[in-house]
Amino acid sequence: MATGDGRVQVGIVMGSDSDWETMEATAERLESFEITYEVQVMSAHRSPKTVMQYAQSARRRGLSVIIAGAGVAAHLAGVVAAHTTIPVIGVPVPSGSLQGLDALLATVQMPPGVPVATVAIGGARNAGVLAAQIMALEDSALAARLKEQRSKMAANVAEKSKKVERSTR
Amino acid sequence: MATGDGRVQVGIVMGSDSDWETMEATAERLESFEITYEVQVMSAHRSPKTVMQYAQSARRRGLSVIIAGAGVAAHLAGVVAAHTTIPVIGVPVPSGSLQGLDALLATVQMPPGVPVATVAIGGARNAGVLAAQIMALEDSALAARLKEQRSKMAANVAEKSKKVERSTR
Amino acid sequence: MATGDGRVQVGIVMGSDSDWETMEATAERLESFEITYEVQVMSAHRSPKTVMQYAQSARRRGLSVIIAGAGVAAHLAGVVAAHTTIPVIGVPVPSGSLQGLDALLATVQMPPGVPVATVAIGGARNAGVLAAQIMALEDSALAARLKEQRSKMAANVAEKSKKVERSTR
Amino acid sequence: MATGDGRVQVGIVMGSDSDWETMEATAERLESFEITYEVQVMSAHRSPKTVMQYAQSARRRGLSVIIAGAGVAAHLAGVVAAHTTIPVIGVPVPSGSLQGLDALLATVQMPPGVPVATVAIGGARNAGVLAAQIMALEDSALAARLKEQRSKMAANVAEKSKKVERSTR
Amino acid sequence: MATGDGRVQVGIVMGSDSDWETMEATAERLESFEITYEVQVMSAHRSPKTVMQYAQSARRRGLSVIIAGAGVAAHLAGVVAAHTTIPVIGVPVPSGSLQGLDALLATVQMPPGVPVATVAIGGARNAGVLAAQIMALEDSALAARLKEQRSKMAANVAEKSKKVERSTR
Amino acid sequence: MATGDGRVQVGIVMGSDSDWETMEATAERLESFEITYEVQVMSAHRSPKTVMQYAQSARRRGLSVIIAGAGVAAHLAGVVAAHTTIPVIGVPVPSGSLQGLDALLATVQMPPGVPVATVAIGGARNAGVLAAQIMALEDSALAARLKEQRSKMAANVAEKSKKVERSTR
Amino acid sequence: MATGDGRVQVGIVMGSDSDWETMEATAERLESFEITYEVQVMSAHRSPKTVMQYAQSARRRGLSVIIAGAGVAAHLAGVVAAHTTIPVIGVPVPSGSLQGLDALLATVQMPPGVPVATVAIGGARNAGVLAAQIMALEDSALAARLKEQRSKMAANVAEKSKKVERSTR
Amino acid sequence: MATGDGRVQVGIVMGSDSDWETMEATAERLESFEITYEVQVMSAHRSPKTVMQYAQSARRRGLSVIIAGAGVAAHLAGVVAAHTTIPVIGVPVPSGSLQGLDALLATVQMPPGVPVATVAIGGARNAGVLAAQIMALEDSALAARLKEQRSKMAANVAEKSKKVERSTR
Repeated sequence: MATGDGRVQVGIVMGSDSDWETMEATAERLESFEITYEVQVMSAHRSPKTVMQYAQSARRRGLSVIIAGAGVAAHLAGVVAAHTTIPVIGVPVPSGSLQGLDALLATVQMPPGVPVATVAIGGARNAGVLAAQIMALEDSALAARLKEQRSKMAANVAEKSKKVERSTR
Repeated sequence: MATGDGRVQVGIVMGSDSDWETMEATAERLESFEITYEVQVMSAHRSPKTVMQYAQSARRRGLSVIIAGAGVAAHLAGVVAAHTTIPVIGVPVPSGSLQGLDALLATVQMPPGVPVATVAIGGARNAGVLAAQIMALEDSALAARLKEQRSKMAANVAEKSKKVERSTR
Repeated sequence: MATGDGRVQVGIVMGSDSDWETMEATAERLESFEITYEVQVMSAHRSPKTVMQYAQSARRRGLSVIIAGAGVAAHLAGVVAAHTTIPVIGVPVPSGSLQGLDALLATVQMPPGVPVATVAIGGARNAGVLAAQIMALEDSALAARLKEQRSKMAANVAEKSKKVERSTR
Repeated sequence: MATGDGRVQVGIVMGSDSDWETMEATAERLESFEITYEVQVMSAHRSPKTVMQYAQSARRRGLSVIIAGAGVAAHLAGVVAAHTTIPVIGVPVPSGSLQGLDALLATVQMPPGVPVATVAIGGARNAGVLAAQIMALEDSALAARLKEQRSKMAANVAEKSKKVERSTR
Repeated sequence: MATGDGRVQVGIVMGSDSDWETMEATAERLESFEITYEVQVMSAHRSPKTVMQYAQSARRRGLSVIIAGAGVAAHLAGVVAAHTTIPVIGVPVPSGSLQGLDALLATVQMPPGVPVATVAIGGARNAGVLAAQIMALEDSALAARLKEQRSKMAANVAEKSKKVERSTR
Repeated sequence: MATGDGRVQVGIVMGSDSDWETMEATAERLESFEITYEVQVMSAHRSPKTVMQYAQSARRRGLSVIIAGAGVAAHLAGVVAAHTTIPVIGVPVPSGSLQGLDALLATVQMPPGVPVATVAIGGARNAGVLAAQIMALEDSALAARLKEQRSKMAANVAEKSKKVERSTR
Repeated sequence: MATGDGRVQVGIVMGSDSDWETMEATAERLESFEITYEVQVMSAHRSPKTVMQYAQSARRRGLSVIIAGAGVAAHLAGVVAAHTTIPVIGVPVPSGSLQGLDALLATVQMPPGVPVATVAIGGARNAGVLAAQIMALEDSALAARLKEQRSKMAANVAEKSKKVERSTR
Repeated sequence: MATGDGRVQVGIVMGSDSDWETMEATAERLESFEITYEVQVMSAHRSPKTVMQYAQSARRRGLSVIIAGAGVAAHLAGVVAAHTTIPVIGVPVPSGSLQGLDALLATVQMPPGVPVATVAIGGARNAGVLAAQIMALEDSALAARLKEQRSKMAANVAEKSKKVERSTR
């Protein structure tokens, strides 16, 4: 499953175009891993047929992972998961009065048989990383990129540490 | 919209047969109002097509109201509502670690355009009453029965009061 | 129950004039469905007699639905519901420190016998849609408008999708 | 305002006879202070007129305090408070899935102008003590009894301490 | 217990001078009822002896009620209540990350024997009203003022209603 | 990545042997998919070196997925994820006073760069399904088994429906 | 600060003798470290003077740490901390309807200047360990015992792992 | 353990340089007590080896206390505590949608054997005070400084009180 074989690898869907503000981080992360993706708005409640058709055709179209971001009673990831057996990653989008707690519970508390791999409230970037981790199982180049990113992260933390490091000894 | 015209007036659906323990109270209440109903188990995640078909055919089949009970990430009422424009009443079923708070939020926090008329956690009986109130708008006999029930309720409270009433004067 | 017969069909009540900011969306939605309505401020705690009289006379005055919006210990919808048997829709208005969670619980957790059809925190627009769905049971023109609105919603989602759609394939 | 003048001093009301299990502690406490009281079941939603009449006549009947216990969307204390200006003490009764958190918020989060003096979830005993503290402002005998009770409490704590006291020195 | 007898009737205490922003509403309300009061900052944790002495001397100094406002782990009202038997009203002040939910729980969840009459998060105005209601038990002039205020409130709601009232009939 | 090639495909780890009661469902599910697995207890806090070594050697040992179950301040999944780049699935185990809400938040709210694919509180069975979905991306036999399981699930729901199905028409 | 010098090193206090069920684990842990302790019941609200005197004399009496366990509006640890500058460890005891969440917030959310070192809800055993860690700073024998305990813990986890360890390879 | 002996006494670590905004208050407080400290950024998830090495070498390097601040799924304090037996103080940093509630639970709900002394959400200043209280057990000069600070605090409260003090008598 090498990246760059011409197919779209990851589908990013979200319940509203306003969720793009959050979900853009997923796209950025996928690009950094050279993973191909597509972006679409579709609503579990307002355009349920689009959601169903998208999910049902996902495996056939060659998608490896679907990442679904939604807020409030966030049913999108769950409904997508109901119509496909490829991994579905859910991003609870913080919006409305309860700041994403409702979205988190509605996304993660799935019943037996139909899981949604849920990341943090607003954790769009990690949805991209998780998709990469899943796809790297059969893509050693991607696995290497993930490992490299981890090293960079550690270096980055060390770098940031210098901004605040001090000792009063 | 007189009751007793041979059609089923209310559809009661639930995500699992274990929800029947909660939802039976809906059926009892409807019977007390002589409202016809049918009961079925269907899952937004495990049998999504059944849900879609049920909701899509509801108006055509003459249903006036659908009452949907579900627990945890309770998507059932919302998914039903996405596929019909007849009123959908949602009953958050208390189950799992969060005791129904997740079900309440996943049922009630619907996005603009697709409402679910949500009752209390475990409020199955009230779902039946609400359905009756909706149908009574055009059924004066039912309206009379509702009024009568209210009088009985008040009398019943007074009756129960006698069990604890006392005065130390 | 055709719209436009000269009577007010829906009563919108709220606990404070500051709730109008939220509840205006209900009025807008009803207008889009050509449903007649009236708006009034009344408080379960500060003007309880007004609330009682309003609710008690509702059916007689020909109202089909009362929509009640209130914040914090939001008793308004429940108290209205206690004095009428027409359907009462409750809108928990987000206000105060708890951002509407208190209003949600105080509105939805009604005891057996007296339901409030609760929508999302701040879900004023959906209160209007739900009222339309209830009234459309006997008004085929309204039912058609609801169906049309749903189609528009789906089209609208597709339209919005174009703003963010992209594919890196 | 001496106790024992023949009138009932405190009204204990509750939404259901099942609340008596909790509210009995209020009665016991009042008896220990020789405060006269009466007990009645009345429901803000099921017998709202009884509630209104009870609250409206309270001052005229000579009641000094009303103590209202209710569960879930606990409107009782608030509705009582809306119809009287004597102090109303609210006891959130733990019941239902949310264990009294809903009752607490519905009781305490009252809007400006109509306060409810709220005690702990299930704090029926303290409702009795608070009523005594209020009435003791003009009843020096009662004030003395309260003081005495406090001394006993401290002694009681010291007594209980002996059960677990130990030192490994 | 007529107002205006030269003594301070209500003590308003708060944990920090920044709480004054919230608690000023208590003072305003008391003034509207012509109830005399005093204001002081004292902290259950930073100046516990002041708190103890204040509470212990309260009855002797003729105070009828102490109103205590505090935020976060709001112990002030409870600690005051531990050292006096006059009624203590607690105002959970919204501050810090949890927006007053911590203050509410720390104020209201008092153990048996030592009640705090808790009002809403940020409910400083109602603390003043509640104090007035308590003191009005023996002050018929104050009772009349409370009744009058209630009438004004109802009128005020009616007045505010006019700002939003409309009917599309 | 065909199943049955002699290596262990999934590592199931948990913070305490008492978590096995919950996590056993993961093992059962994996067995139903003929996925090989191993089970071990290791604690992020009590045996951190074991956790680190396990996670660091996971990819080298050929594991495709690690499933980590833990309760209360559930750090296990996060700490495992910090030491590997293969997908880590987190199961919040319900235990202690907060019933798993703490475990959910501690598992899912991971910072950018190190995701944990979180399932429902107590969602051990779904962790097994999710692992299967991830591994099925390159294993068409497993993909077929997943599809088959979904069909069975739908049939199972229909079967269960018969237990409660009724119609009063 | 060697252990065994004849003085009591740690004071364990709790709000009620019923808290002993939880707090006994603290005592057991201290004994395992050969730390001397004493146990007493005292209440921030029911015997506040005892609390004040105990805390004020703690340093003089040679106590190194006070461990305070309390439930609901758990003020005990905070009030102890207000009267001493030796470290105070707070144990939120799970009791009442909110299962210790109220106790946690009331214990941990202390204002600037007066910290309480808070452990988990019901975390009595860890309170003992934390006390030992604090005292081990100047007691190398105790430090060695702590280290040894950690090794045992890791061994214990490995031991427990054997109960569930399996591999389907 | 006199201060000023040339070694660093307290290690302040945090998960991100953005946490410095919160944690700076810890440093300020330590300086006011003339306690030496060092500051470093390290992440339980992004640079876990740094964390492990830091914690493991802490006692050897002469640190008396480690203060760890982190947000969201705040594992830092717990992971540090897993690798050392010196006291670890955890500061839940308020960040993200849940405002620090997740950080609080992830920090405080530690399993038996590995405590974290947790302070309030954002309670960085108190972390410094708590460290000082711990170190003052064997440093009488520091103990005196703590006592003096308490006196100042009480004076400061009295000072602030003057800003709002008034009496309408």
